[in-house]
Amino acid sequence: MAKRIIGTTPKQDGFRMPGEYEPHKQIWMLWPERPDVWRDGGKPAQKAFVEVAKAISEFEPVTMCVSANQYAHARNVLPPEIRVVEMSNNDAWMRDPGPTFIKNDKTGEVRAVDWKFNAWGGLFDGAYFPWDKDDQIAQKVCEIEGIDTYRAEDFVLEGGSIHVDGEGTLITTEMCLLSPGRNPHLDKEGIEQHLKDYLNLEKIIWIKDGIDPDETTGHVDDVACFVRPGEVACIWTDNPDNYFYQYCQDAYKTLSEATDAKGRKLKVHKLDMPKECVRIGKGFTIDYIEGSIPRPEGDICIASYLNFLIVNGGVIVPQYGDVNDALALKQVQEMFPERKVVGVDTREVVYGGGNIHCITQQQVK
Amino acid sequence: MAKRIIGTTPKQDGFRMPGEYEPHKQIWMLWPERPDVWRDGGKPAQKAFVEVAKAISEFEPVTMCVSANQYAHARNVLPPEIRVVEMSNNDAWMRDPGPTFIKNDKTGEVRAVDWKFNAWGGLFDGAYFPWDKDDQIAQKVCEIEGIDTYRAEDFVLEGGSIHVDGEGTLITTEMCLLSPGRNPHLDKEGIEQHLKDYLNLEKIIWIKDGIDPDETTGHVDDVACFVRPGEVACIWTDNPDNYFYQYCQDAYKTLSEATDAKGRKLKVHKLDMPKECVRIGKGFTIDYIEGSIPRPEGDICIASYLNFLIVNGGVIVPQYGDVNDALALKQVQEMFPERKVVGVDTREVVYGGGNIHCITQQQVK
Repeated sequence: MAKRIIGTTPKQDGFRMPGEYEPHKQIWMLWPERPDVWRDGGKPAQKAFVEVAKAISEFEPVTMCVSANQYAHARNVLPPEIRVVEMSNNDAWMRDPGPTFIKNDKTGEVRAVDWKFNAWGGLFDGAYFPWDKDDQIAQKVCEIEGIDTYRAEDFVLEGGSIHVDGEGTLITTEMCLLSPGRNPHLDKEGIEQHLKDYLNLEKIIWIKDGIDPDETTGHVDDVACFVRPGEVACIWTDNPDNYFYQYCQDAYKTLSEATDAKGRKLKVHKLDMPKECVRIGKGFTIDYIEGSIPRPEGDICIASYLNFLIVNGGVIVPQYGDVNDALALKQVQEMFPERKVVGVDTREVVYGGGNIHCITQQQVK
Repeated sequence: MAKRIIGTTPKQDGFRMPGEYEPHKQIWMLWPERPDVWRDGGKPAQKAFVEVAKAISEFEPVTMCVSANQYAHARNVLPPEIRVVEMSNNDAWMRDPGPTFIKNDKTGEVRAVDWKFNAWGGLFDGAYFPWDKDDQIAQKVCEIEGIDTYRAEDFVLEGGSIHVDGEGTLITTEMCLLSPGRNPHLDKEGIEQHLKDYLNLEKIIWIKDGIDPDETTGHVDDVACFVRPGEVACIWTDNPDNYFYQYCQDAYKTLSEATDAKGRKLKVHKLDMPKECVRIGKGFTIDYIEGSIPRPEGDICIASYLNFLIVNGGVIVPQYGDVNDALALKQVQEMFPERKVVGVDTREVVYGGGNIHCITQQQVK
């Protein structure tokens, strides 16, 4: 029902990765529970995940994958229209170990790439150890759906480190993809070749840095994404005192000067950062476990509005209780006049190290 | 995607349980691994399960549910056309904790009954403790498929303890359904009423005893089943020295005298038992765990050819290396001239306490 494709690449077989704005069959999520990542036993984060899942399910189906121990609880607190399936895991970031769905436009067939996953850097600078359950997630998702996979055994990649336009262009960061924790056996050219072979691309646009060197080593999905072919959104601030000011300037400059696979100069939409940094709060109880990244009180969280998710007919946007929340919704709405923009308070997700885009993965229709 | 139906019964909503010979969408199975049930770490049984799954998949799709620990191994040894999904469990008998699929003939909708499961007798005389994971299996299967369920919270039942003709008749055993380990709060009439309400029946035919008082407390699926409406198969032996002689005589007599919901007198097909008893062999390593039924060397196993599974266009029949193996295939073929009959050596399954029917559950199309 779900084969491993051996001996050919997606490009050879006529498969490409569609843009996130192309139609989805459903969104996949994973249930948060580990107490060294999620404060207070994961209970506040679980409530936020429920709200994200509900918001998405107004637009398209959602499947929540949940460990055996949390299955009954998750099933009880999620509405019946959200499918709940058992899946063991090391954490809850479906974007990263999850499958990258690809499509053959001639036959309509959907397959997936099952990248090698090493918890954002493996033994070099990964976020936790072990990550064996996470690395099985892509295959398990595809088995449930009966979708054939390409296993990229020699190539480490997370879904959050790339964005594509569906027309041959990918944006990523050097900070992440050239990190020694990912594919030190490959040079930049070798990495480009893998991306091109697996996702059917002609052009890679390299942004130098992401904004979270310590967690994902700078995933692009906190920095920039395609809004439609030829247009991108990029984080922004006019305030030189903003913690992320220089990152914003640099990414904006790179994208403004870039051309895509079709030779188009990109239109770049600015999306302001929150005014205030979100920080790990006082009184949070977060377990300390050797090998996991500590989260002490006052630590700056990587709160970017850009970590939104495009769904069928909508966009689900993080909200942080910041004065810029409404501005973010307005700016995203202007980028997507044809979609309904919905904000969800996801501070509890950002305390764990990511946001709406990080905890979701779209399955192409 | 998969609701709990509250406040109505399947009968009220126009759902009935189809006969096993009606069309299936697929067959569900569970992967064996517990070393206090399956000899030698479950490895011989796993090979037998693979052979059963392969035989079925020649006729219709198969989904194998596997614990996290065994997932990679099961995926590797099963052919790609068999779907493998993660599901924690207490053991491998999908027939019993699995969902009973029911259908509304007017709308075509399929739902399921999620019976309460207590490991064949709970704390009274159950086969093991705990059984919490098994009791979640019906719901988990239905979630994956997006099928709504009726949870029978106040009614313990296993799929192997019943057979229906799809036209209002059910056969079962008093030994099982009236056992104090099942529903001691209900009398025979109360149990009949539950069966009628959940499966849309008019007539219950009671056989006195099953042939395994110690394991399932006498499931009917080792004794008799419907071949088509108005016709049943029943275990048989002419040899008074056969260990199961009296059980065969009694069941045959009961069925020969019975009429079904439509008032038809049943045609009863004889299916001979194996000539020799299958026994727990010398040198088997089976862990001993307090609370599980011990399986000492020489113990008689419940080897009945009747524990076959009807699939789309076929019948999968147990084989035991017995002189009667060929006779069983011939007798089953005569009952089902329109189906292809396939034998599979399942001695390793019967060592664990059941057979092909016990380890499978059909999902109605």
